[in-house]
Amino acid sequence: MTDPSVTAAICIIGNEILSGRTQDKNLAFIGERLNALGIRLSEVRVVRDDESAIVEAVRALSERYTYVFTSGGIGPTHDDITTACIAKAFGVAVERNSEAMRRLTAHYANTGIEFNEARRKMADIPVGAALIDNPVSAAPGFIIGNVHVLPGVPRIMQAMFDGLKSRLVGGAPMLSCTVACTIGEGTVAAGLGAIQGRYADVEIGSYPYFRAGHFGTSLVLRAADATRLDAAAEEVRALVRSLGAEPIEAAAEPAEGDAA
Amino acid sequence: MTDPSVTAAICIIGNEILSGRTQDKNLAFIGERLNALGIRLSEVRVVRDDESAIVEAVRALSERYTYVFTSGGIGPTHDDITTACIAKAFGVAVERNSEAMRRLTAHYANTGIEFNEARRKMADIPVGAALIDNPVSAAPGFIIGNVHVLPGVPRIMQAMFDGLKSRLVGGAPMLSCTVACTIGEGTVAAGLGAIQGRYADVEIGSYPYFRAGHFGTSLVLRAADATRLDAAAEEVRALVRSLGAEPIEAAAEPAEGDAA
Repeated sequence: MTDPSVTAAICIIGNEILSGRTQDKNLAFIGERLNALGIRLSEVRVVRDDESAIVEAVRALSERYTYVFTSGGIGPTHDDITTACIAKAFGVAVERNSEAMRRLTAHYANTGIEFNEARRKMADIPVGAALIDNPVSAAPGFIIGNVHVLPGVPRIMQAMFDGLKSRLVGGAPMLSCTVACTIGEGTVAAGLGAIQGRYADVEIGSYPYFRAGHFGTSLVLRAADATRLDAAAEEVRALVRSLGAEPIEAAAEPAEGDAA
Repeated sequence: MTDPSVTAAICIIGNEILSGRTQDKNLAFIGERLNALGIRLSEVRVVRDDESAIVEAVRALSERYTYVFTSGGIGPTHDDITTACIAKAFGVAVERNSEAMRRLTAHYANTGIEFNEARRKMADIPVGAALIDNPVSAAPGFIIGNVHVLPGVPRIMQAMFDGLKSRLVGGAPMLSCTVACTIGEGTVAAGLGAIQGRYADVEIGSYPYFRAGHFGTSLVLRAADATRLDAAAEEVRALVRSLGAEPIEAAAEPAEGDAA
C-alpha cells in the first residue's frame, strides 16, 4: 500500500451538489491524481454554502490529513463564501491581493469584460496565503496551511490542480491491477478473504458488475510494491481458475453492477 | 425554503470511490429524491472501508441529522464491513436474521446459485434493526435508529430507496426554478445579491456554464413557498433584462462551466 502517512481529504462546497442538480466530478479526478502521486485520499465531505458548516469541516480535515483540497464557492456572486470561511477557519483576515488584482486586471482587459466590484471580489485572499495559478480564467485559488482552495467548475479546477501537483509530496505511488471474472462475489469471497489475510500490504477490493446481460466481479488489487502486487494478483488468478472461470485482465470496468 | 428542521446526511463507504475508480452516482440520486420529499440533504461524507472511520462518521451524522443513509459495504466479501461497523456505532450485536435468511434462501433457490457461507453473511443484521426490502437481489438493507443502510450498486440502491421512501417524513417539498442567461456571473452578481437580500426564504444559487462556444450563467432559485419563488424569479428575470440579455427558462443545464 502507499505510504499511509501521506493522506488527503477533499471538502466539496456547494448546495448544487447536495441538491443533486450538479453531479460532482471533482472527487474522482482528484482521487485518481492523488493515487498517482502516492497520496491516499482518505475522506471527502460535501457541505452546504454555509459558514459554520464550511469552517468546521475545513478545520476538522486540516487537523487530520496531510493535504486538504476544497472545491467550489470562490466566484463573484453572493453564494461564493469559501474564501471568507477559510480565512475564518485559520483566524486570519481577508485582503485584496495585489498580485491577484494584477492577474484579473490583465485578464479582463484582454477579454473586454468589465472588471467590476463583483469580479474584484475574486482577488480577495486570506492574509498569508500563496496563490494557485488559474490558466483558464485567471481568478486564482490559494494555499493556506495545508488547505488548497480550488474552484468547483471541473475544467478550471483540473487545470489548476495539474499546475499545483509539483508542490505536493507523496509517498510511493499506488500500483493497481484488476482481475475480472464471470463469477459472483459470493463464490469468490472465501478464497479472496484468505488471500487478503496473507497480503496485509495489498488492498484487495471486490466489485460486482452487470453488463450486456452478464454479471461478474472485478477484483482490484492495490499496493506500492510491484512484487507483492504481482504475487497477490497471481494468487487471485489461480483462485478464479480453481472456481472454473478464466481470469480477465481488465484495464477499466464498469462501476455499476449487480450480482453478489 | 424547505423546513430546515428535517435534514439528512449520506455516508458513502468505499475505497473504490476515494481512489477515483468508481464515479459515485448515489449522492445525486438521493439528493434529488430527498428534495422532492422536503428533506434537506445537508452533508455527505465519503469514508474508506475502515472500521474506525465508518463508526465515527456514522455516529457524528446520526447525532446531527434527522435521517442518515449509508451506501456500500454490505456484500459478501471481506471488504464489506459496513454492517459490523453500524452495529458497533450503536453498541449492539450482529445476529443472523431469520427473515433475511428466508429471503436469501428463496432467492438463491430460484437462481440456482449456491447459498454458501459468504452469501449467508448478507443475512447478518444488527440486533433490533428493521429490514429494508431489496427487490433486485434479495439481500436486505436495514434501519437502526435514524440510519438507513443501503448497498453501493446504484441500480440496487435506487430500487431499495424508492421502496423505503414512504417511511420518510419530510417538510414542505422544495420547489425550484432556473433562469439562465448569456451573461457572466460577475455581471449579474451585484443585482443578484440584492435580490437574495430581499428574499431570505428563497435560496438563490449562481452557476456559470460553457457550452457550444458560449458562456452564461444559470440562476437557480429554491423555495417551499410557490408565491415567493415566483416573485423572486420575476425579479431575477427583470435583472437579466436590465443587463441587456433575455432570460432563458431552463429545465436542466449543464453542470460544468466557465465564465465568472
